[in-house]
Amino acid sequence: MNIINKKIGIVGGGQLGKMMILEAKRLGFYVAVLDPSPDCPAHSICDKLIVADLNDPKGYMELSKHADVITYEWENISIRALEILEKEGLPIYHPLTTLKAIQNKHSQNEVLHKNGIPVPKFTKVKSIDEIKEAGKPENFGYPLMLKTTTGGYDGKGTALIRTENDVENAYKTLGSGTMELMVEEFVDFEKEISLVACRSISGDSVIYPIAENTHVKSILDTTIVPADIDMSTISKANDIGRKLMSAMEFIGTFCIEMFVTKNGDILVNEIAPRPHNSGHFTIEACFSNQFENHIRAILGLPLGDASLQTPCVMVNLLGQSDGKTALFGLEEAYKHPNVHIHLYGKSTSKTGRKMGHYTVVDNDINKAKTLATELKKIIFVGTNKENNNG
Amino acid sequence: MNIINKKIGIVGGGQLGKMMILEAKRLGFYVAVLDPSPDCPAHSICDKLIVADLNDPKGYMELSKHADVITYEWENISIRALEILEKEGLPIYHPLTTLKAIQNKHSQNEVLHKNGIPVPKFTKVKSIDEIKEAGKPENFGYPLMLKTTTGGYDGKGTALIRTENDVENAYKTLGSGTMELMVEEFVDFEKEISLVACRSISGDSVIYPIAENTHVKSILDTTIVPADIDMSTISKANDIGRKLMSAMEFIGTFCIEMFVTKNGDILVNEIAPRPHNSGHFTIEACFSNQFENHIRAILGLPLGDASLQTPCVMVNLLGQSDGKTALFGLEEAYKHPNVHIHLYGKSTSKTGRKMGHYTVVDNDINKAKTLATELKKIIFVGTNKENNNG
Repeated sequence: MNIINKKIGIVGGGQLGKMMILEAKRLGFYVAVLDPSPDCPAHSICDKLIVADLNDPKGYMELSKHADVITYEWENISIRALEILEKEGLPIYHPLTTLKAIQNKHSQNEVLHKNGIPVPKFTKVKSIDEIKEAGKPENFGYPLMLKTTTGGYDGKGTALIRTENDVENAYKTLGSGTMELMVEEFVDFEKEISLVACRSISGDSVIYPIAENTHVKSILDTTIVPADIDMSTISKANDIGRKLMSAMEFIGTFCIEMFVTKNGDILVNEIAPRPHNSGHFTIEACFSNQFENHIRAILGLPLGDASLQTPCVMVNLLGQSDGKTALFGLEEAYKHPNVHIHLYGKSTSKTGRKMGHYTVVDNDINKAKTLATELKKIIFVGTNKENNNG
Repeated sequence: MNIINKKIGIVGGGQLGKMMILEAKRLGFYVAVLDPSPDCPAHSICDKLIVADLNDPKGYMELSKHADVITYEWENISIRALEILEKEGLPIYHPLTTLKAIQNKHSQNEVLHKNGIPVPKFTKVKSIDEIKEAGKPENFGYPLMLKTTTGGYDGKGTALIRTENDVENAYKTLGSGTMELMVEEFVDFEKEISLVACRSISGDSVIYPIAENTHVKSILDTTIVPADIDMSTISKANDIGRKLMSAMEFIGTFCIEMFVTKNGDILVNEIAPRPHNSGHFTIEACFSNQFENHIRAILGLPLGDASLQTPCVMVNLLGQSDGKTALFGLEEAYKHPNVHIHLYGKSTSKTGRKMGHYTVVDNDINKAKTLATELKKIIFVGTNKENNNG
C-alpha cells in the first residue's frame, strides 16, 4: 500500500485529536475518529466519525474497519478495548505496554524509580489509617498529596491534605477507597516545567525546548518557552527525557511534567503518552509541531525539526460561563500581528472547560509575556450573555 | 452574531480552498464549499460540500443558505452567478468590482496602465490580419504573445508567436476568434517575481516578501524567497503592490506576477485575486500565512505578521502519470528535518496536474536551494505502476 493511502484511526476527538487531524490533512491522510460526542472538536474535519462510548467494544470494532494504524489523544482509555484493535492486527502507538505502565500512577512511579529517574516519595494506601500513618513526621509528613492511581487529569483524582484534619475529607473526595489510592510527598516546587518529545518507530527522537508552566486551580494556565531555568537544569531535564524515551519505548509525542525544587533538583510529576497542552506553543514556535511529529511517528516517518524558532507564550482559554460558545476580544487581540488564537470548536462553553488557547511570539520573551498578560483581560470565551459586541 | 458563528462560503474546493479551510478551522469556523467534484481536495474538511457546476445558479442559491460571507479560490468564475449571492445580501471578497476588472486581461491591463503601473504593450486583436499587423517591426514586432482576454491560467489561453509563420496556428489554438483576443509585447525577462499581499476590510494591509519564480512549460515550478533581486527592484515591486492595493480595492489575499527586465524595469504580467501558488512558502516561512490572512481579511479582522521568519524554497509536485495517486520518496525526503510536504488529496493523478508541493526552509538559502533541487529526484507523485516501494 502506498503510504498516503494509510488510514489513521484516533481514539478521542477532542482538541488534541483535532490538532492531529489538521496536520494529517496537510498530506491528505484519511482519518477516522472514535468519540462519544457527535459534536466533538474533530467532527467536522475527520473523514469518518464513529460515535460510541469509549468503553464500548463495538465502537472499536467499527474503528478497526476504517484504520490501518491507531493512536489516541487521551491516556485514560480502556486497555481491553484497545486490545480489540490489536487483535485485529492494527498497530497502536504509543504501544499498549507503554500505556499500561503509565495509566497506573503507582506503576508509572515504579518504572521511573527503577530507571533512576527522581520522583516524589510515594506509596499505596488503602485506608484512612494508612494515610494518617503516611502523614506522620517520620514518614512523609504534611502537607501530603492523596491521588487515585488511575483516571486523574487536570487536578481531578488528587487531593491536597494539609493536616491530619483533612484526611477523612480527602479520602471521601477520592471515592472512599472504591478506587486504588496512593500518597505522594508534597513537593514545594520553585517551578513547574515540561518536556515534550517525540520518538519514531525507528527509535529516532526529537526533544522540544523545555517549557515553563503555571497552573491555576490545577489546570494549565500559561506556558512560557524558553523556560527561565539554568543550563544545568535544562540538561538534567533533557537527560530524564532521553532516559525515559528508551525505558518506556514511546512511539509518538509524549510529555513529562516535572517539578524544579528550590535547590535545583528535578522530580518527575507526571507523564502523558500523547501530545500535551504544554506543547501547543510548538504550532507557532517550531518548524514541525508536536502534532505533526506525532503523525509522522505513528506512520513510521522520520521526524521534523523541533528546535525553537521564536520565543513563545501560550495561554489557555477556559470557558467563563455556561451556554452556547462565544469568543470575545478577537478583533482587539488581532491588532497585535504576533498573536494567534485557536478555538477548539466546542459548541458549548462550560465554566473552566478548555475552549481554546492563544499564543504570542516575540523575539523578546519579556514583550511576549507582557502582551500575553494584557490579552488575558481582552480575549475570553463565554456565552453571549456577557456581551453582544464580540 | 458572535464572530465565531460566522459561516464562510468558498466557491471552489481545490487546494487553495482546502488550505483556506485548514486555517479557518484553527478558530473553528464553519465552512461550506461549492465545487463540481464530490472528491475535491476540500471535501473531507469542510462542513458542507455543495456539488454543482460552477455555472449552475442552483449551487449558488444552496451555498447562500450555508454562508454569511463568501470568497472564492479561483478568478475564472461567473460574475452573474456570484451576483446571485450578492442579491441574497452576502458580502463577497474580493469585491465583484475588483474581480470584474481582473477577469478580463485587457481591462486588467487598462486599469494598471491608467494607474501608472508599467505593463507590457498590449492591444485587442480580432483577426489573423490584425495579429500580423501587430507583429510588424514598427508595431510590437516578433516574438509576440497572443492571449485570450478571459479564462487563462497556467499558460492556458496564451500562445507564443515567434514569427509571422506561427500566426495562423496560434489563432487556431486560441479558438479562431471565438474568444476575445489580445496581443502583448514579448518581454525578454531576466526574472519572474511575485508579490503576495493581503488587504483587510478596514484598508490595512500586509505585503509578504517578494518571491522569485521559475516556470516550466508555463506552470510554476519553483519559488525562492527572498528573491535574489536588489533593493531598488524590491522597492519598485512593493510600490506597485501598494498602488494596486488601493486602485483595485482588494479585500483578502492577492498576487501580482511581475517580470524583471534585463535593465531592471518591472512590468506587471498578471494579477490573481486570491491566495496564489507562489505564496505557499508563507505556510512555513511566515508567522501568518497567505491563507490565514485571507480568512482574517474576509471576516473583517486585523491581519497577522507577514514578515519572513526563514528563507524558503517551494517546489510544485505535478502528477507524473495518470491513475490512482501515489506519493514516492516521502520517507527519504523526511530524513531532512527542514522539509515539509503538502499533498492536496486529489485521488487521481494526471500528468502535469498540481498534486502537491514541498518546501525547504534553511537560514542559508543556498543550502535550501541545493536540497530542494536534490529532492526533485526523490519526491514525486504518480501512480503505483512506477514503483511499489513508496
